[in-house]
Amino acid sequence: MDWNRAHRYKMRVRYADTDQMGVVYHGRYLEWFEAARTEMLRDAGLPYKELEAGGYALPVIEVLCRYQRPVHYDDCVVIHTRLAEVNRLKLKLEYRLFVQEDPALRIEAMTVHCFVNPNGQPVRASKTVLEFFNKIING
Amino acid sequence: MDWNRAHRYKMRVRYADTDQMGVVYHGRYLEWFEAARTEMLRDAGLPYKELEAGGYALPVIEVLCRYQRPVHYDDCVVIHTRLAEVNRLKLKLEYRLFVQEDPALRIEAMTVHCFVNPNGQPVRASKTVLEFFNKIING
Amino acid sequence: MDWNRAHRYKMRVRYADTDQMGVVYHGRYLEWFEAARTEMLRDAGLPYKELEAGGYALPVIEVLCRYQRPVHYDDCVVIHTRLAEVNRLKLKLEYRLFVQEDPALRIEAMTVHCFVNPNGQPVRASKTVLEFFNKIING
Amino acid sequence: MDWNRAHRYKMRVRYADTDQMGVVYHGRYLEWFEAARTEMLRDAGLPYKELEAGGYALPVIEVLCRYQRPVHYDDCVVIHTRLAEVNRLKLKLEYRLFVQEDPALRIEAMTVHCFVNPNGQPVRASKTVLEFFNKIING
Repeated sequence: MDWNRAHRYKMRVRYADTDQMGVVYHGRYLEWFEAARTEMLRDAGLPYKELEAGGYALPVIEVLCRYQRPVHYDDCVVIHTRLAEVNRLKLKLEYRLFVQEDPALRIEAMTVHCFVNPNGQPVRASKTVLEFFNKIING
Repeated sequence: MDWNRAHRYKMRVRYADTDQMGVVYHGRYLEWFEAARTEMLRDAGLPYKELEAGGYALPVIEVLCRYQRPVHYDDCVVIHTRLAEVNRLKLKLEYRLFVQEDPALRIEAMTVHCFVNPNGQPVRASKTVLEFFNKIING
Repeated sequence: MDWNRAHRYKMRVRYADTDQMGVVYHGRYLEWFEAARTEMLRDAGLPYKELEAGGYALPVIEVLCRYQRPVHYDDCVVIHTRLAEVNRLKLKLEYRLFVQEDPALRIEAMTVHCFVNPNGQPVRASKTVLEFFNKIING
Repeated sequence: MDWNRAHRYKMRVRYADTDQMGVVYHGRYLEWFEAARTEMLRDAGLPYKELEAGGYALPVIEVLCRYQRPVHYDDCVVIHTRLAEVNRLKLKLEYRLFVQEDPALRIEAMTVHCFVNPNGQPVRASKTVLEFFNKIING
């Protein structure tokens, strides 16, 4: 799944997202990436809520975030999300964050998630679930 | 329970708490009041976690907050919390927030909580629980 | 301005908005009301950012929030916002929060804001600004 | 600076920090690491606020976070923070997060910061500032 086919999620920066440096607080982006991957899954046909109803959760086990340029109050943000890798134990998502009408990359990030059951124990994804994610990767 | 006997909770303002106006974001205070009442309960001998283990939760059903003066990054905040009223259905807490060594009131607030069971249904507090809260009020 | 003419703002509940009770954390709603009033102003023709560029800010000086029914992860939320009162010193906004396709009121709230200059000093709104807000009220 | 000499910061998990999975939301830790490094600087003799008054800010330009084990409501958290590297352009901090009285590592993390001036432009740290940070590293 290359970046041209990445999912796009749009949102607006709130006052609550900023800090006194006048830019978005670095921790906030993690919430936005959560929203971005949630909409990617929904648009691919499997809302995260249904995945949970099916007995899986996908907690974040690793985050990497590089802050290239700041984002400001009221900016219209576009997050590109792509599923980079998946196997029966975990999956990796990548993100690129832009401000609308500006091609300069603001933030790039990566999250790794593992499959767990409702008790939080690591499990292997079923073939059906794995196929679903592979279909996202292969288009 | 008058203000002289109110519980005191101290904390430091983080960058994450501020917004681009250079002051604490107005929504953040609700998290701080949560921390303040949690410590009040713990100091009174009943940690909220044990209350939950006993089958009760105390969700917030009303909040009133008056922002008199701003609070800034790195300020040392002191929150005075007092239990104002309690009956078998609900209780009311009041808060006054100061910055250390400054007598000027920054924020005053009030939260109302009802007793619910683990399914979120309103319930009547047991006599034991009611007595516990009454003892906090009467000292 | 009656509720029929209230502004409508739609959004989706994130995982980040929930707490371990399985519902939206009570403090989060204040961020949502901020987003709702920001879009109300934008749709009325005066983005908050331009108001700031014009030398005004509208800090929250009072919040009242009544939590009638909980809101859950992935709910599609609709916030109705109306400008209830305005004078040269302050304005009052009212909010009603629903989950899409459910007529039951979840949360109702009110925020009061005063006009301040870039240094945070209270000021009187200009006639132009006052007229702008009156036009929102009168439709 | 090895881990034995790392700074220790203690705090309590709030309800506001949790999500509906019953654990701390992964984005929250970044706020805690901010608090931890702020107290490390204060204890070393240079509060971040004074660094800002001296014309420097230290925005986060990279975050890496590995979530090994979950953290829960009301847990007493201890964050070990160490300054790993510094030069005139940037510095790197490392974090290890534990729950009190449990030796199992919960979270490990790293933040990279660059020196910027009040306008957010990258600058070279003065010799005095560099020496200050080197002294923290060398003890």
